[in-house]
Amino acid sequence: MGSPMALNLIKVGCDVIVWNRTKSKCDPLISLGAKYSSSPEEVAANCDVTFAMLADPESAIDVTCGKNGAVSGMGPGKGYVDVSTVDVATSKLINEHIKARGALFLEAPVSGSKKLAEDGQLIFLTAGDRSLYELVSPLLDILGKSRFYLGKVGNGAAMKLVVNMIMGSMMASFSEGILLSKKVGLDPSVLVEVVSQGAISAPMYSLKGPSMVKSQYPTAFPLKHQQKKLMLTQDLRLALGLAESVSQSTPIAAAANELYKVAKSYGLSDEDFSAVIEALKAKSQDTA
Amino acid sequence: MGSPMALNLIKVGCDVIVWNRTKSKCDPLISLGAKYSSSPEEVAANCDVTFAMLADPESAIDVTCGKNGAVSGMGPGKGYVDVSTVDVATSKLINEHIKARGALFLEAPVSGSKKLAEDGQLIFLTAGDRSLYELVSPLLDILGKSRFYLGKVGNGAAMKLVVNMIMGSMMASFSEGILLSKKVGLDPSVLVEVVSQGAISAPMYSLKGPSMVKSQYPTAFPLKHQQKKLMLTQDLRLALGLAESVSQSTPIAAAANELYKVAKSYGLSDEDFSAVIEALKAKSQDTA
Amino acid sequence: MGSPMALNLIKVGCDVIVWNRTKSKCDPLISLGAKYSSSPEEVAANCDVTFAMLADPESAIDVTCGKNGAVSGMGPGKGYVDVSTVDVATSKLINEHIKARGALFLEAPVSGSKKLAEDGQLIFLTAGDRSLYELVSPLLDILGKSRFYLGKVGNGAAMKLVVNMIMGSMMASFSEGILLSKKVGLDPSVLVEVVSQGAISAPMYSLKGPSMVKSQYPTAFPLKHQQKKLMLTQDLRLALGLAESVSQSTPIAAAANELYKVAKSYGLSDEDFSAVIEALKAKSQDTA
Amino acid sequence: MGSPMALNLIKVGCDVIVWNRTKSKCDPLISLGAKYSSSPEEVAANCDVTFAMLADPESAIDVTCGKNGAVSGMGPGKGYVDVSTVDVATSKLINEHIKARGALFLEAPVSGSKKLAEDGQLIFLTAGDRSLYELVSPLLDILGKSRFYLGKVGNGAAMKLVVNMIMGSMMASFSEGILLSKKVGLDPSVLVEVVSQGAISAPMYSLKGPSMVKSQYPTAFPLKHQQKKLMLTQDLRLALGLAESVSQSTPIAAAANELYKVAKSYGLSDEDFSAVIEALKAKSQDTA
Repeated sequence: MGSPMALNLIKVGCDVIVWNRTKSKCDPLISLGAKYSSSPEEVAANCDVTFAMLADPESAIDVTCGKNGAVSGMGPGKGYVDVSTVDVATSKLINEHIKARGALFLEAPVSGSKKLAEDGQLIFLTAGDRSLYELVSPLLDILGKSRFYLGKVGNGAAMKLVVNMIMGSMMASFSEGILLSKKVGLDPSVLVEVVSQGAISAPMYSLKGPSMVKSQYPTAFPLKHQQKKLMLTQDLRLALGLAESVSQSTPIAAAANELYKVAKSYGLSDEDFSAVIEALKAKSQDTA
Repeated sequence: MGSPMALNLIKVGCDVIVWNRTKSKCDPLISLGAKYSSSPEEVAANCDVTFAMLADPESAIDVTCGKNGAVSGMGPGKGYVDVSTVDVATSKLINEHIKARGALFLEAPVSGSKKLAEDGQLIFLTAGDRSLYELVSPLLDILGKSRFYLGKVGNGAAMKLVVNMIMGSMMASFSEGILLSKKVGLDPSVLVEVVSQGAISAPMYSLKGPSMVKSQYPTAFPLKHQQKKLMLTQDLRLALGLAESVSQSTPIAAAANELYKVAKSYGLSDEDFSAVIEALKAKSQDTA
Repeated sequence: MGSPMALNLIKVGCDVIVWNRTKSKCDPLISLGAKYSSSPEEVAANCDVTFAMLADPESAIDVTCGKNGAVSGMGPGKGYVDVSTVDVATSKLINEHIKARGALFLEAPVSGSKKLAEDGQLIFLTAGDRSLYELVSPLLDILGKSRFYLGKVGNGAAMKLVVNMIMGSMMASFSEGILLSKKVGLDPSVLVEVVSQGAISAPMYSLKGPSMVKSQYPTAFPLKHQQKKLMLTQDLRLALGLAESVSQSTPIAAAANELYKVAKSYGLSDEDFSAVIEALKAKSQDTA
Repeated sequence: MGSPMALNLIKVGCDVIVWNRTKSKCDPLISLGAKYSSSPEEVAANCDVTFAMLADPESAIDVTCGKNGAVSGMGPGKGYVDVSTVDVATSKLINEHIKARGALFLEAPVSGSKKLAEDGQLIFLTAGDRSLYELVSPLLDILGKSRFYLGKVGNGAAMKLVVNMIMGSMMASFSEGILLSKKVGLDPSVLVEVVSQGAISAPMYSLKGPSMVKSQYPTAFPLKHQQKKLMLTQDLRLALGLAESVSQSTPIAAAANELYKVAKSYGLSDEDFSAVIEALKAKSQDTA
């Protein structure tokens, strides 16, 4: 997703320096005017503000704090904006390393998809240094349709977990509705359409519903691959951990999480998270 | 809600005859050109198609099958369209009485609110006689923005239950998110706004969220009074009964139903169904 | 189960008159000294106290209020003790008919099995006429090991539902433990043994556990056939209805009920209720 | 709990050397013939087999691996038996340190209470070195009524989590039954008694039920203090983590965990875990 974001910055005339572990992935951007640096450190050294978009917490830490990592290139007056989705602890760790260099840090996980990144329609959930937030706001406005500043580092990650918790429960509930409508003799496709017209209409339902009715869970969907994996294996569980830590009762999310566990035990971890519907289907009994 | 619907028919020039147990409620319509009949029977006798909008199953049956009820005025060539929200059994009962008179029946519960009724933006979930459906389609298009024909009598009620089941679970899940965000130090108003921008954005969340954050559950909301009562006391439970009857597992709805029960035990039956959020709040311990 | 109960009364020298729809089932009792009457009415007419043990609510009503039913033989000074397991409404209906004849009524559902009936180890949950309770107490002491008088008619049925609700949840929880222990590499048979030694040891676990570990759910178990069917199809659901009627939150029972629904959708309705464990097993995915 | 265990060993004539952070706690044992050593290291150096009973994982690690810890006194031919309740990771860590000294390790968490410890009625869930298990079996038989050898280190802790998971669900289910019986007009004390007579009778119910009915949750109960805390704050959550790690669906335990969270949010963390019943009570509404 970093690629379409960089592209949007190039399009409006920003000076962009790019780096990727696999240099060839940067070629399209270079052909449009981006410069290439040979390491995160070099990018950070040559830029006022460095944006990082990594696939997971491990990569986010490695690219920042590892050998030739961005931290080595940071210094006073510079800013580091991490738009990856990471957990609270990772975000705090990166923040500490950046701050130790006298630079500013902004955690800014995005809500959106590759398509929305291309269209400049992302949502940024930022937290950390307010001055850096204000500095990069014009850039965030190029990349997305809205941005939220949420206070101290970790709050961006927490907000994303809460949103994804609701998302996970909604998908499980929608699955129940689809299967129940079918079992009582209604056309589940019509349910999807009815839902799309009323007070509970949500883009996710319209996007995923038609495929779910056909027992298809393509991962090429706007909610990109790692998002889906996170949902099944991590986000809902992390959200429950967050709720546990403050003794907030979340029985719906807990019940939903049980269904995602069933889906995983069915070997569906590599499917889109809408595959949770399979957890609610009656399987033919195959026990001895 | 019958009033704004009749008004919209009058506005486009339909000949409308109205009746209400409390005649004065019809006065505004009469002043705009509607005629008044003194009983449901008389309305039915004088009209090609009779629309019924009643508050609950008992009234729906009484107005149809009771003394001077619509059934007595029905006959071959006439049609009866019940846009009330009733259960499957009630709908089937009314259907039988209407059919016994040689007339046609269409069950057509609406999804919407008084505001949407005024704006002609209702959604009709119809089932029953297809020829009557086709006959009244132009009228439904005046009253609403979409209409679905779902087959045999009872399917309209069933579809509405499934939709409301999802709605009840979504509201419970949203409540969890609001409270969790608050407990971990995020601003729940911001959560409401973040949700409103992304894949899980739903009109219901935007409408109810801001009040829920303030622990307010006004019933003057577009989801009108009886809708709310139905949700708390009836719809979710009826949906679970429906699921039970076909052995469809619905753990999310079951968990949500438990929360509505808690809300009821807190004495919140007369509040909007968004008051379910109270069920998730830590109450100060008042036990001996 | 009526047979071993009658036998125990005969053994201690009571004058017993028996009736069964299928007379041959009474032959063993007759050979031991019981008299046979040709209808429930005749039994009631010839006895001071009539005990009824029927398989379901329909039979209980039929044998009491139907043609040549027991009610016709009742009268002042006589008592009717229904030891069948029926719902609250059925119990109240039978009570009204008996009382209308000037006779006394005692609802007395039993907790136990055929084996326990043979051993005189049943538990009686009685409600209704206290004087009849006191009159038959010596008989109940022959048939069972304990008896409870619970007040007004319906309370016996309600108490049985509450007990069975706990039973259903416990069985579901035990199933989770067995499967979890197995998945983490422990021997589930050892879990069954460990449980049997400590604070949560229960006869049901010891009885069913060893078979459950082997994925076997024989219905020839002490909890007899109809008991099991009731559990899967009726008792837990009725208990949830009871809880709904008083707005008592029962999230554990609700979650358990969802598992029994899954078990039913797997076609396990004719298995012992311990087959609920199948609902928690990962099934190979068989979807298109 | 270490004290009554040591006492039981002294009684049968074992040579016992004791140590406690607070020496005075050992005085009663010393007066009965135990020797005292000034550190865990010294105990280990002077004994063939060292038993450790610590309150929590941190203490278990400190006493083993800390300054003057038992590890320093271990060596080939010696054995270390940890009867504390710790998590899997802690048990594995201690095992590694002991093994690095060439000694044998047995994880042996107990199920039981101070009273059961005094009576020599504990249950040992052991795992680790089988030869050490066999060596100490005669000692375990003095201290307890049964012992299980479960294989590799970590299995003892895992078995205990599974048992406590069932225990937590059972207690939540029992709470539902008590409150439901009360709400429908039955005497909850009678429910406790009825349960105690049948197939779901469990020592825990008989022990805790009478107090629960009175809304009392004394911690001086046989399930000792830290056990209760573990249940509320740790065991159920750890068990859910275990289930998550193997994708085993445990909806009952998940629903139960939500209730324990509610109980914690009510400020009941220092009460016995039977206080979970408070989570199911309707609280008077105290919201603005």
